[in-house]
Amino acid sequence: METKILSVLEERISKATENLIAIDVMEAEYAKLLAIGQEKNADSWITRSQNQSPHCKFGETGVCCKICAMGPCRITAKAPKGICGCDVHGIVARNYLRFTAAGSATHSDHGREICHTLHETAEDGNYKIKDPDKLIRLAQEWGIETEGRDIYELAHEVAFEGLQEYGKPFGTLRFLSRATKERQETWAKLGIEPRAIDREVSTSQHMTHIGCSSLPDVLIKQALRAGLSDGWGGSMMGTEFSDIMFGTPKPIDTEANLGVIDKEYVNIMVHGHDPSLSEMIVEHANDADLIALAKSVGAKGVNIVGICCTSNEVTMRHGIPMAGNFLQQENAVLTGAMEAVVVDVQCIFPALGPLSKCFHTKFITTSVVAQMPDAEFIRFNAQTAGENARNILTAAIENFKNRDQEAVYIPQMKAKARVGYSCEAIIKQLDTVTSSYIDELGTWKPLIECIESGVLRGAVAMVGCNNPKVRADFAHIELMKKLLKNDIILVLSGCSAQSAAKGGLMNFEAKDIAGAGIKRVCELANIPPVLHMGSCVDISRMMILVNQVADQWGIDVPQLPVVGCAPEWMSEKAVSIGNYVISTGIDTFLGIVPYVDGSDVVKDILTNQARDWTGAAFTFETDVDKLGDAMIQRIEEKRLALGI
Amino acid sequence: METKILSVLEERISKATENLIAIDVMEAEYAKLLAIGQEKNADSWITRSQNQSPHCKFGETGVCCKICAMGPCRITAKAPKGICGCDVHGIVARNYLRFTAAGSATHSDHGREICHTLHETAEDGNYKIKDPDKLIRLAQEWGIETEGRDIYELAHEVAFEGLQEYGKPFGTLRFLSRATKERQETWAKLGIEPRAIDREVSTSQHMTHIGCSSLPDVLIKQALRAGLSDGWGGSMMGTEFSDIMFGTPKPIDTEANLGVIDKEYVNIMVHGHDPSLSEMIVEHANDADLIALAKSVGAKGVNIVGICCTSNEVTMRHGIPMAGNFLQQENAVLTGAMEAVVVDVQCIFPALGPLSKCFHTKFITTSVVAQMPDAEFIRFNAQTAGENARNILTAAIENFKNRDQEAVYIPQMKAKARVGYSCEAIIKQLDTVTSSYIDELGTWKPLIECIESGVLRGAVAMVGCNNPKVRADFAHIELMKKLLKNDIILVLSGCSAQSAAKGGLMNFEAKDIAGAGIKRVCELANIPPVLHMGSCVDISRMMILVNQVADQWGIDVPQLPVVGCAPEWMSEKAVSIGNYVISTGIDTFLGIVPYVDGSDVVKDILTNQARDWTGAAFTFETDVDKLGDAMIQRIEEKRLALGI
Repeated sequence: METKILSVLEERISKATENLIAIDVMEAEYAKLLAIGQEKNADSWITRSQNQSPHCKFGETGVCCKICAMGPCRITAKAPKGICGCDVHGIVARNYLRFTAAGSATHSDHGREICHTLHETAEDGNYKIKDPDKLIRLAQEWGIETEGRDIYELAHEVAFEGLQEYGKPFGTLRFLSRATKERQETWAKLGIEPRAIDREVSTSQHMTHIGCSSLPDVLIKQALRAGLSDGWGGSMMGTEFSDIMFGTPKPIDTEANLGVIDKEYVNIMVHGHDPSLSEMIVEHANDADLIALAKSVGAKGVNIVGICCTSNEVTMRHGIPMAGNFLQQENAVLTGAMEAVVVDVQCIFPALGPLSKCFHTKFITTSVVAQMPDAEFIRFNAQTAGENARNILTAAIENFKNRDQEAVYIPQMKAKARVGYSCEAIIKQLDTVTSSYIDELGTWKPLIECIESGVLRGAVAMVGCNNPKVRADFAHIELMKKLLKNDIILVLSGCSAQSAAKGGLMNFEAKDIAGAGIKRVCELANIPPVLHMGSCVDISRMMILVNQVADQWGIDVPQLPVVGCAPEWMSEKAVSIGNYVISTGIDTFLGIVPYVDGSDVVKDILTNQARDWTGAAFTFETDVDKLGDAMIQRIEEKRLALGI
Repeated sequence: METKILSVLEERISKATENLIAIDVMEAEYAKLLAIGQEKNADSWITRSQNQSPHCKFGETGVCCKICAMGPCRITAKAPKGICGCDVHGIVARNYLRFTAAGSATHSDHGREICHTLHETAEDGNYKIKDPDKLIRLAQEWGIETEGRDIYELAHEVAFEGLQEYGKPFGTLRFLSRATKERQETWAKLGIEPRAIDREVSTSQHMTHIGCSSLPDVLIKQALRAGLSDGWGGSMMGTEFSDIMFGTPKPIDTEANLGVIDKEYVNIMVHGHDPSLSEMIVEHANDADLIALAKSVGAKGVNIVGICCTSNEVTMRHGIPMAGNFLQQENAVLTGAMEAVVVDVQCIFPALGPLSKCFHTKFITTSVVAQMPDAEFIRFNAQTAGENARNILTAAIENFKNRDQEAVYIPQMKAKARVGYSCEAIIKQLDTVTSSYIDELGTWKPLIECIESGVLRGAVAMVGCNNPKVRADFAHIELMKKLLKNDIILVLSGCSAQSAAKGGLMNFEAKDIAGAGIKRVCELANIPPVLHMGSCVDISRMMILVNQVADQWGIDVPQLPVVGCAPEWMSEKAVSIGNYVISTGIDTFLGIVPYVDGSDVVKDILTNQARDWTGAAFTFETDVDKLGDAMIQRIEEKRLALGI
């Protein structure tokens, strides 16, 4: 019997695999690109990683302190305390809090820029309101009068109130009320309800200053609070206001991997995180005069491709193809077919400037907060956004003639993907399998029923970056395959989503490598087995999803058979995310250990004691297979506890 | 002729020296205390510093990066770039910006607490308005209606507007308008006018996140901006609102050094920075029932002594004696005569908890942002402040019986000091030498005339901490002596002020070791030759002073023969201060090199290029004598340029 099932399964997998792109195939292509780079004496993350290995063990375990100028201090058996007297647990916890707070500040500062852009919207401006219904719903949620008001006047008031969330002198964040009652009570009891967003960043700096806090539990609680101010503050506003301005994502087809770069076209890579710039570039890429200009220089047109979360933003809303994720950024330039790399903020290798100089590629920075060497800086702002975008497009198009077409090498691999699964889109999809005669539409009930019945065993929110410490994308893709086989559905964001897309897992046909339960769900609801929910700020969508599901199910968030996972994370933002995800009651599995290994106390708080506080904790596991097993086990434990 | 002058000088010095306490005398006493500690197996900063030496050269030169989890990376000849591609200049500059931003956040968060306390003031509350005139002046400056309003209603509105400075969505800081027109234009042109205070902290985190800014000039400019948001934002509000609530300091006599601890009394050491707690303790220390309690346990009464800036706050307003500065905190406990160490925030050795356990001393932490091991935590807040203070006093008094009176060793050294020189107090003092028939009162004219005429060659603002990397207090005191001999007057704050006080330089008689010019000024104006202007947030007073002087003189701030100096600094706050001081146009001399030695580009920006931007720059010089010479030279250069 088992053999038969297995053979059916294998047949299915073999069929599905035609649409999949295996990691070793990708790696073989990357190696060719790397060789092209080496011929030009170009640097690469691979050689830089080799040069930087082995890493400093003091730093890697978190026991090094550079917080004042009496040091640096390093905790060893011979020197068990810093000069101020801080012990290893205080040092590790302070470093952890600063790491988190920087991530929270970074996400939230992105959210702030989006608030400012919303404040600049105008009927005849560069930025308009594309989802007025969402704006009105949000305004009503915030108690702002909507009746009979001009939509732009309303947008400006909402934007102003959003900006106030960063620095209001009293109270806690507005969006906390979106969480379940139980979550809100948990946060209040723990004293980790975030006040103003920036205040939590500043307080975190203050607490970790020389001669302030050195109790690890106090410092880690502040890390949870700073995390929450990101996920339920800055990031959530980033997502919501982006939807209001640029449209709430709905399912759309696209393609992913380096094959989306087109030799016949002017290729422009948008890279970073803030959609304000990339939206403008996408909007103007099809301006008739620019297309004509492209043709005049011998190209067929303009081809915008994305890297990192900027890519996620424009693919979710416009189906712009995804060239790849974090560790793909240099590969895209190495094809020799990139006229311009246009970047906004975050996760942009400063290496791109020097690398672009090895080719004809223009490296264009646009944000005051992300200025790099060997770049052309075109300062982007909301008032001049359209003009900025057209200038960038023109420069890229004119650069086409400088391309050495003979030397171009574009790996011919790309996978189909269906993206665009905002909460609103998923609910709409669920409505298609709801009988409107029996059930209420617009709820998570069908999903809850699938999980309760065991058709789906649970869900994993897989997120986070790549990290040269592990084989790029391997953990993402292998874990997804494993989880799908176990009927665990995946919601993705950030670089993880791009891993899936590059590998072909966002294709509808990928259902065939999944278990019978997911396959049936995919077929009924007409969805791929892994759902692209957006960029890294869009993990706020996942927070809303789990809280609404828990609420409608009538259980607490920590009871849900749902876990989070960042198998290849590398950024401070990722740790901020981890903190708000466990604060939200969702166990979080990390494939890279944060810089905390030097303190058993801090590790115990994060992986154990936090569960007493929030109902969830971290698991650190660098073995991919064990990481997958641990998640499956946790989900099954939660099912058992629920009696389902 | 020269010989005669020298002999007169020597005689004067010998007379003055009777009132001075030499460093080596202090050190001999500290050594005795250290020996007492060693018998009890107590740790000390001296042994911990030895254990932590040599320091990591990567960290100390700023070339180590722990900003993301791909690393840590360290720049070497073999590995010239981080994994992201950031070069050494970007890494050093990012670290420098984070160091600054953390200091700015710390000072400003202290200021925020003061705003919150002001918001809690009430006619019958724990906190009252002691300087209503200053409140009204400030309200008028901010355009707040004052006419016919209840003073507490006004205080609450001012406090609210102050809190808004931390997070207002638009505009720049209110207090920038206190600077000279030229300064304001300089800041605007450079693009470093701070927006909301916390925003500059968050933006600094964002800019330094993986894949954001790596251009050193851009990063250093943001450090200047973050610094300004401290000095002309959070710190300035901390100072102004403290004056409003607790009284604007005016000259008052006190004593300094360990001899202020009294064997016959219950000794309570207040330590940290925020005066909200210590004001309450001072206020209730003379409650009749508590004095009676003290007598009932065999003490003559209650003796409050201060350490660090908390000490500066209560000495400036109440003449509370100063036990000492940063590296004196353990010594005070080692006397064995300390019933309680009561701390608020910042620069508190976590070592104090374990050290207190070697004695009968209670170590009491009171702030949620500064919680430490081996402490009793009495959460202090504005509503319960009086009760908190009385509970702390009661616990300390009751602890007197646990003191081992036989084992007490209090070094019998203390120096007289006159403190309390707020700008208002200095101007009032200057009025005493102004003829009201000829000149306007309430101006800086007499000071300007002294400098113009050369009676005073110039002024040095000496500030900052101690640092085990150099002989404690040696640089502070030696530099002061040298500068005084050269007729350069000193304004002091923070641990530097306490160095002077401990050494006897704040005594009126110390004029006799100064040059003829200062001596005459001291005698005419009845002031000591070094003026205690307050705590480290009170460096904002110095910024107001120099801007008002420049304005009334009719020259730009960078033209003034005035420099800043932090010869023994150690904290992030000190670097934030340095940034706002050079941004304000005042050359700043540091005796400890910040963690920037690994980048010649960053060093050049800080010590050279910054002068093109702001009119001032840093000088790093670890040789005390050369540091003094450099300051004198700079002051004389400025005089020469002015033609005076």
